[in-house]
Amino acid sequence: MASILPASNRPMRPDKNAYEGKRSVYVKNPYLDAMDEDILYHLDLGTKTHNLPAMFGDVKHGMGIPSISIMLHELIKLLHHARCCDVTIIRIGTSGGIGIAPGSVVITDTAVDSFFKPRFEQIVLDNVVTRSTELDKELAADLLSCSREIPNFPTLIGHTMCTYDFYEGQGRLDGALCSFSQEKKLDYLRRAHKAGVRNIEMESTVFAAMCGLCGLRAAVVCVTLLDRLESDQINLSHDVLVEYQQRPQLLISNFIKKQLGLCSQMSHPSPVSW
Amino acid sequence: MASILPASNRPMRPDKNAYEGKRSVYVKNPYLDAMDEDILYHLDLGTKTHNLPAMFGDVKHGMGIPSISIMLHELIKLLHHARCCDVTIIRIGTSGGIGIAPGSVVITDTAVDSFFKPRFEQIVLDNVVTRSTELDKELAADLLSCSREIPNFPTLIGHTMCTYDFYEGQGRLDGALCSFSQEKKLDYLRRAHKAGVRNIEMESTVFAAMCGLCGLRAAVVCVTLLDRLESDQINLSHDVLVEYQQRPQLLISNFIKKQLGLCSQMSHPSPVSW
Repeated sequence: MASILPASNRPMRPDKNAYEGKRSVYVKNPYLDAMDEDILYHLDLGTKTHNLPAMFGDVKHGMGIPSISIMLHELIKLLHHARCCDVTIIRIGTSGGIGIAPGSVVITDTAVDSFFKPRFEQIVLDNVVTRSTELDKELAADLLSCSREIPNFPTLIGHTMCTYDFYEGQGRLDGALCSFSQEKKLDYLRRAHKAGVRNIEMESTVFAAMCGLCGLRAAVVCVTLLDRLESDQINLSHDVLVEYQQRPQLLISNFIKKQLGLCSQMSHPSPVSW
Repeated sequence: MASILPASNRPMRPDKNAYEGKRSVYVKNPYLDAMDEDILYHLDLGTKTHNLPAMFGDVKHGMGIPSISIMLHELIKLLHHARCCDVTIIRIGTSGGIGIAPGSVVITDTAVDSFFKPRFEQIVLDNVVTRSTELDKELAADLLSCSREIPNFPTLIGHTMCTYDFYEGQGRLDGALCSFSQEKKLDYLRRAHKAGVRNIEMESTVFAAMCGLCGLRAAVVCVTLLDRLESDQINLSHDVLVEYQQRPQLLISNFIKKQLGLCSQMSHPSPVSW
């Protein structure tokens, strides 16, 4: 799931209020402008059949699917065709934690791969291209600050590990295939923790890489549903699971309200749990 | 999308009719039997809360999502818990063709990666494990034979290339990111064709690898919606697109009917188009 937030009326950034100062969403493809029509196939939209600036110029919608790279290609082209400016995009979702209490919200500073490296290896034709997975540190700090205003809301900033696979790639012992021991699993997860990884999910590296290349201010905010040092399966009651799953939405909706200047006074800030 | 076909009453294989002769679906995980309960999280099913043999012992349902490896882990565990035997699993879907007419149905003999190699590189913890992507050649030949009984049904057997990405990974010039020339794209696709690749999609290598390891008889049958040597975007009318998309279903439903002995006499076989 992703939240898209245009920052044009962000009160804390007066330099961005003039149109000239806005950062356009740009694509890095010299062929795009030469095309007679561009059909965003998976979105069922086209530049000839739809007035994209009118339809999406003030885009604020959310989305979240496993094939996030396809969606990002088409979403970024959509933002480009619609001439959106100063766009902030936030991936929100669930994840497995490492060494932190279930229910903690992790704001990602850097997405890392299965080898704990801050990189995304994109295959372009038959070449492997390595891309940076840094995320916007100022945005992460703003989100952490926002989280402190919500009572009993454990939040931290840490690395997020992104894997291609939910089972073998995340060291789970409960998949259809498992060729490693409990000891090897724990050794791997402890090494990840030592490298700064606080949670594991499956989209953040390509999300960070593509947003970074295309000039989108980006963040990843995921709640953890279990501590992978303790278990592989989720053992929460339905009500607790639902409450945890809503935490990223709660944080981002508060953040959006603050950006729009709609924030009511919040009660006593709660301490941040680590 | 995948079609799952239990082969227990396959008339052409009398040796499989006795229960003793049936191939069980097996998982390769020594930890599974020791678990008190196994929760198939993404399917909302558990071994304690559901009678899986009663619910799915005669499983025939279909599925198809981008995160096919998660689904395969849980589906294969489901088949294991339900003690299914002699299961055939067929992935059906759409793809981009290389050097063949749109509407052609490609039955995959071997799935290959972006480097045209018949392998799937699975990351297990922080190790890269290379797995075979061979598919069942006899099943592919049976499917080709079945396709010949359908009039005007262009079908061929060939390699299928599986990529992680729809745009840069498949040499498309119409993504949000494109760093290569039209010439480099065509050179890559022509090299793929020379290596035996006839279509491109995004699931076949992990599908072939996991099915192969778990003893599932597997096939991949995809229709092509365009010739990637000609274009990147699909330019078919809605009606033609719908008819093409139904072709794999048509072939597999005919194949299932044949396996069940329900096949009516078909009219003149049509020649196979290459």
